[in-house]
Amino acid sequence: MVKKFSALALSLVMAASLFAGCTGSASGKVEDGKKSAEISANIEQLSTNEQKSPKYIFLFIGDGMSSTQINAAQVYLGSNKSGEVATKSLNFTQFPVTGLATTYDSTSFCPDSASTATSISCGIKTHSGVIGLKVDKKTPVESITEKLKAKGMKIGIVSSVTINHATPAAFYAHVPSREDYYDIALQLAKSNVDYLGGGTINQPKGKNGDQKDAYEILKENGYYIADTKQEILAINSACGKTYAVTPAVQDSGAMPYALDAKQDDLKLADFVQKGIDNLYNTDKGFFMMCESGKIDWACHANDAFTTIAEVVDFTNAIQKAMSFAYEHPNDTLILVTGDHETGGMTIGYSITGYSTAFNLLGRQNMSFTAFDSLISGMKKQNPNLALTDVLPVIKAHFGLIAPNDPDAKIEANKDYVLSDYEYAKLEAAFAESMKSSKERSATTEAKILYGSYDPLSVTLTHILNNKAGIGWTSYSHTGTPVPVYAAGVGAEKFSGFYDNTDIFKKLVELTKA
Amino acid sequence: MVKKFSALALSLVMAASLFAGCTGSASGKVEDGKKSAEISANIEQLSTNEQKSPKYIFLFIGDGMSSTQINAAQVYLGSNKSGEVATKSLNFTQFPVTGLATTYDSTSFCPDSASTATSISCGIKTHSGVIGLKVDKKTPVESITEKLKAKGMKIGIVSSVTINHATPAAFYAHVPSREDYYDIALQLAKSNVDYLGGGTINQPKGKNGDQKDAYEILKENGYYIADTKQEILAINSACGKTYAVTPAVQDSGAMPYALDAKQDDLKLADFVQKGIDNLYNTDKGFFMMCESGKIDWACHANDAFTTIAEVVDFTNAIQKAMSFAYEHPNDTLILVTGDHETGGMTIGYSITGYSTAFNLLGRQNMSFTAFDSLISGMKKQNPNLALTDVLPVIKAHFGLIAPNDPDAKIEANKDYVLSDYEYAKLEAAFAESMKSSKERSATTEAKILYGSYDPLSVTLTHILNNKAGIGWTSYSHTGTPVPVYAAGVGAEKFSGFYDNTDIFKKLVELTKA
Repeated sequence: MVKKFSALALSLVMAASLFAGCTGSASGKVEDGKKSAEISANIEQLSTNEQKSPKYIFLFIGDGMSSTQINAAQVYLGSNKSGEVATKSLNFTQFPVTGLATTYDSTSFCPDSASTATSISCGIKTHSGVIGLKVDKKTPVESITEKLKAKGMKIGIVSSVTINHATPAAFYAHVPSREDYYDIALQLAKSNVDYLGGGTINQPKGKNGDQKDAYEILKENGYYIADTKQEILAINSACGKTYAVTPAVQDSGAMPYALDAKQDDLKLADFVQKGIDNLYNTDKGFFMMCESGKIDWACHANDAFTTIAEVVDFTNAIQKAMSFAYEHPNDTLILVTGDHETGGMTIGYSITGYSTAFNLLGRQNMSFTAFDSLISGMKKQNPNLALTDVLPVIKAHFGLIAPNDPDAKIEANKDYVLSDYEYAKLEAAFAESMKSSKERSATTEAKILYGSYDPLSVTLTHILNNKAGIGWTSYSHTGTPVPVYAAGVGAEKFSGFYDNTDIFKKLVELTKA
Repeated sequence: MVKKFSALALSLVMAASLFAGCTGSASGKVEDGKKSAEISANIEQLSTNEQKSPKYIFLFIGDGMSSTQINAAQVYLGSNKSGEVATKSLNFTQFPVTGLATTYDSTSFCPDSASTATSISCGIKTHSGVIGLKVDKKTPVESITEKLKAKGMKIGIVSSVTINHATPAAFYAHVPSREDYYDIALQLAKSNVDYLGGGTINQPKGKNGDQKDAYEILKENGYYIADTKQEILAINSACGKTYAVTPAVQDSGAMPYALDAKQDDLKLADFVQKGIDNLYNTDKGFFMMCESGKIDWACHANDAFTTIAEVVDFTNAIQKAMSFAYEHPNDTLILVTGDHETGGMTIGYSITGYSTAFNLLGRQNMSFTAFDSLISGMKKQNPNLALTDVLPVIKAHFGLIAPNDPDAKIEANKDYVLSDYEYAKLEAAFAESMKSSKERSATTEAKILYGSYDPLSVTLTHILNNKAGIGWTSYSHTGTPVPVYAAGVGAEKFSGFYDNTDIFKKLVELTKA
C-alpha cells in the first residue's frame, strides 16, 4: 500500500508560510498569516488610484505559467477532498483587475524566457536567448529596474532558480546569450540591485571553473551574502546590499521543488519576506521582481502535480506581498503574470473526455527530478534493474499500480491500476530508460513520447496526468497568451489584451520612470 | 500543384462583411466597413460609465473559444504573408477591458455547452446537458433575456448553428435535456424573443418527424419567417417578430463553415446586422446574444484552420455591433467570451518545439466536414478506393504531398511533404477510414488518434496542424478558463477573474434587471 499520500505534502506547502519565522529587526516586518477567507475583503481596500505612482511594486512572474497551470491548482484544491465540482480560488486570482498578454518574441511565437523577460523588463522584442539587448544583440536597453533605481527606489530580485538564470537576469543584465552565466554574474555584482534572494549563482567560477569566484566579486562590491537559514532569517534593513542564498539546493543550484523540499527548508515566501524586511527602509520605495522558475521546469517535463505544488507555493510568496500591501494600501501595486506558457497543458484529455479525476494526482509525492535521482541510484546499485524491481517504487511515489499487483484488487486503488495499454507504454519506456542516452531511440514516436526526458519518469507523469484528465502537447514553451493579475495603485492600467512589452510601458507610465 | 490556396479564401472571409448589403428601411442601419486601423481610436470613444445602464447590449459567445483559438487567428493573420513574427489583432481583442472566467458546471470541470450557457444566461451551475433548470432538472431559473424582456427591452438571438441548439436555447428555454429539440422549439415559439437569426430549427417535426411543424407554430405565434436571401436582406424594424433562417445549410441545418461558404452566402455578420435593423426601433433598447457555434465543432474535430476561419468570421459579426456602438457610444455594451474551451488546442507541439509555421495552414481550403463528404462520395463511386486515388484530393484540399509525388521535389512544397512517420499514420488512418464504423478499431490507441471522427480527415488535420506547430489534447470540451472582452457602458465591471455565473450577475447589476 502507498503510505505517504501527498495531499498532506501539498497542505504542508500551503501552510509553509504560516510557519516561516522572521527575526529581522522589524522595520519591514509585516503581519503574516492572513487567512484566505479575508483576502477578498482586503483586496477591495487597496487603492486603485491611477493618478498616483505606486511606491512599492511587486512583480511576480510564474515562469511557464498561464491560465491552465493556475486553474489546475484551483481545480486540484477544490476537488481533492470530496470529488465535488468546485474550484478553490488562489489568492492572486481574486485581484480586481485582469489582463491578457501575448508573449511572442522576435524569433518565435513559442518564445524563450530570456527574450520574454526582456520584453517585460525593457519593453522590447528581441531574439530568443537574448537578455536586455535589442535584436542586434549589441544595443543595451534600459530596464524598468534601472529606471526605478535611478529614481532612488530600491530593487529586489528573487528567484527559485539560479539568480543568474534568464528571467532574473533580464532585470539587471545585458548579454547576447542567456548561457553567458558568468558574464551575467559579473554584471549582477556591479548592478547595485539592493536585494537578491533565492537560488544560487550558476557557474560561479565560469564555464570551466577557472574564473574568480562570483560570490567573492559580489562581496567585493559590497554585498552581504547570507547563506545559512539563521543568517537569512536575521536579514533586516540594516544589512545593506544583501544576497540571501538558499541553503537547500536541487537541479544545479536552484531551490528544491515545493514537492521535494523539507518542511524546515526556507521557501520562496521566506525570500520575499526577507526582501521586504531588507528593502523597506527607504523614502523612495522599492520594486521587487519574484520569479517562480520551476513551474516552467515541471511543465517542460509534463509533470502536472509538481507544477500544481509550485503554483501553490508561489501563492505563499505572493501572500507576503499581499500582507505588506494591506499595511500600505495606498502605496502598493502587485502584479502577477507568466512569461509564457510551457507544455501546452490542458485540463482535458482525449481518453477521459468530459471527466477529470484530479484527486488521483495526490498520491504523487516527489517531482520527476527527485524520482529520476532515485531510479538513477537504483541503476547504479543494480545495472540489471528490472521493471519488477521498480514497480514498488512507482507505487510508492506515483501511486500507480501494476495490473498483477495484489494491491490492484483493493477498491480504493482501482483508479490507480494501469490498463494493459498503459502497462505496455510503461514497459517500453522502462526499456528505453535502461539504455544510455546515446543508445535511446531517436524516432519521431520517441520524440513525441519522451521529448528529451527520462522515458520512465515522463511516461509515469503522462500516465498519471492522463488518468486525472490532463493533457500536454509539447515539451517546450508555447504561444498561449498569459494572464496578468493586478491589485493596488494603478492596477486598472493592466486590464485589456496587450503585448508583454506593454507591461514595461505601463509600469514606466505609472511610475513616470 | 495546389491551385487554390485559401489565404485567398480567408481574406474573402475577412472582407465578407464589407460586401454585405442591407436594404432594410434604415431605422437601424449603421455605417459599415470601418477599417481595423480605426478600431482602437473608436473603442476609446465608447463610454465606460459604470453608473449608467447600457441601453443596447451585445453578448457574443464563441462556442469552444478560449485564448488559444483567438490567438491562433491572430498568429495566422500576422504571420501568414512574410513569415514575420507578429500578430494581427482581432477587433475585439482591442476592447479596453478583459476578464477571465471559470467554466465548470455542477457535474464536470470539462463542462457542457447547455450548462455553461445556462450559467451565463441564468447565473446558476447545473448539470451537463441541462438548459435553464436548476440541478434538480425541474426548477426553471429566470434568464437575463427574460428579465430584460420584462423591462421592455427587445431580445435578439443569433447562432451559426441550429437556433434550438444548446447555447441559443439557454437564452429562451428551460428543459432537462439539450436533446429535447422539439420541446425547445415549442418554447421558442412562445418565448416572444423578438429576433431570431442564423441556423434552422433542428428536428422541426420532432424526433420521429410526426409532430406539427415548428415553423408553422412560430408563424401562428406571430413570427415572420424570412428564409430567402432577398427576404432576409429586406428585414427592418417594421417586420415585427422575425426569424431570419439561413438559406445555406450544412451539418443538419447549421450555417456552413466560413471556409465552405460561398461568397454570396449570407454570413453570421449579416444576421447580426439584420437583427440590429429589426430591433433598433425601441425606446427601451435591446439585448442580442450571438453565438458562433462551429468554432466548437471544428475544435472537437481538431481542425485548426477551420477554427481560425470561424474565429475570423466571428470578428465580422462583432464588427457589426462595434459599428453600431460607434453610433451609440454612450448607450452600448459589447461583451465577447467563450462558453468553454474545446480540444485543448495549443500553439506549440512536441516535434516542432519552439518553431511554428502557421502559413502552412493556408493551403487547407475546406473544413473536415466538407472533406468527409467529398471522400464519402468517392467511396460510394468506388468501394475499392485506394489511398493512391485519394492522395491528389488530399493535396488539393490540405496541401499535403506524399513523399513519392513528383511535386514533392518542388522547393515551395517542401514543408508540405509527408515524412515517413506521417505517411505511415496516413496509411493506417485510410485503412481504418475504409472500414464501416462498426468494424473500426476500438483500442485506446485508436481513441487517442481518431476520437469518434473519420480516421482519414482527423489524421490529415492532425498532420497539418502539427506541421504548423499546433497541438491538441482532446476531442471534448476542456477546463481551460475563457477570456471575457468588454467595451462600452459598464465594461469595467467585467475585469478580474470570476466564474461564468458572474457574467449573468454583472449584467443583472448593470441593468438593474
